[in-house]
Amino acid sequence: MKSLTEYLTFNTKTRTAFVNLTPQVRQLVKKSKIQEGFCLVNAMHISASVFINDNESGLHRDYAKWLEKLAPHEPINQYEHNDTGEDNADAHLKRQIMGREVTVAITNGELDFGPWEQIFYGEFDGMRPKRVLVKIIGE
Amino acid sequence: MKSLTEYLTFNTKTRTAFVNLTPQVRQLVKKSKIQEGFCLVNAMHISASVFINDNESGLHRDYAKWLEKLAPHEPINQYEHNDTGEDNADAHLKRQIMGREVTVAITNGELDFGPWEQIFYGEFDGMRPKRVLVKIIGE
Amino acid sequence: MKSLTEYLTFNTKTRTAFVNLTPQVRQLVKKSKIQEGFCLVNAMHISASVFINDNESGLHRDYAKWLEKLAPHEPINQYEHNDTGEDNADAHLKRQIMGREVTVAITNGELDFGPWEQIFYGEFDGMRPKRVLVKIIGE
Repeated sequence: MKSLTEYLTFNTKTRTAFVNLTPQVRQLVKKSKIQEGFCLVNAMHISASVFINDNESGLHRDYAKWLEKLAPHEPINQYEHNDTGEDNADAHLKRQIMGREVTVAITNGELDFGPWEQIFYGEFDGMRPKRVLVKIIGE
Repeated sequence: MKSLTEYLTFNTKTRTAFVNLTPQVRQLVKKSKIQEGFCLVNAMHISASVFINDNESGLHRDYAKWLEKLAPHEPINQYEHNDTGEDNADAHLKRQIMGREVTVAITNGELDFGPWEQIFYGEFDGMRPKRVLVKIIGE
Repeated sequence: MKSLTEYLTFNTKTRTAFVNLTPQVRQLVKKSKIQEGFCLVNAMHISASVFINDNESGLHRDYAKWLEKLAPHEPINQYEHNDTGEDNADAHLKRQIMGREVTVAITNGELDFGPWEQIFYGEFDGMRPKRVLVKIIGE
């Protein structure tokens, strides 16, 4: 069994942001030389997500608006977590809806993707450096 | 390390549908001859889900009703994604709640399941052929 | 390829509860002697979750309150699933938001975690014994 481990760092300019990781992950699959296996991509911070969906900016704005409706940032004092001095309780909720991680099959040395699948980093408490783990195992 | 890769195709008669994949996945685990490993099952389309829950039709109707409340299909113009000519933005939202994929342990050559666990394909924009990937790795 | 399979049992005193599994999972990673690989942790019951987030009790109360708003327990007869004699339909919905499973990378023989990542069992229909599976594969 072979494996590859890499860490990507993101520092988004806005509190909420979606970043397409697919080119970077594809590069790492190539680098790993793994032909058949699994590729795990996960947020290492608990107020951010990694998920697979469409590379369409209108949809990303729909996600941001929808998540804000399901788990609003304001008023900050509606969340007990924010009594600790934080203001990001909503980000911990939003991240549960969008997910922490994806596992992608590697087949013939490539991400085994459907026609529209792309991997995104979803940031809900940005403007500081945060990491994503890529771990590939296989043969 | 051994691996097996298969693609299942679904073409549901309704926009929303839940299909039990467990018998097909069990067959593939047997075919793989893998005794200890992981089985990944994921939707290859971004308006559909794969998830594990109960094989109970009343619960599936509860899911459909609940998802429609959290991410309504109508009015279509409430979503920017639909400005592209699509009408399925809600399906991309519903799929995030239900999830893209499951990873199931294989132990002694079988899906290592609790008493009620069953794998479902969740369709939110059906009536056309869409694929699910099953990838098994292990020994 | 090496593997380790273990089952943890939980019997929470309340219907809703969050239990930190991280120390037990860490022990199992050590026991597996696996240096590079994947660790899958999943609920074996379909009204419970395994997820990764913050070890902060205020946040856990925020989760419980938020999930109750998104998928209320009462009135019980709002869910078709409860016509079967159950009263836990809401737990099946809550579990979809929080997720069934996590896959964690193992690097240099340790859970490859960000600074605040901790693994939790999320119970939404407790007061009876329920199991969690830990399966580790790698080398």
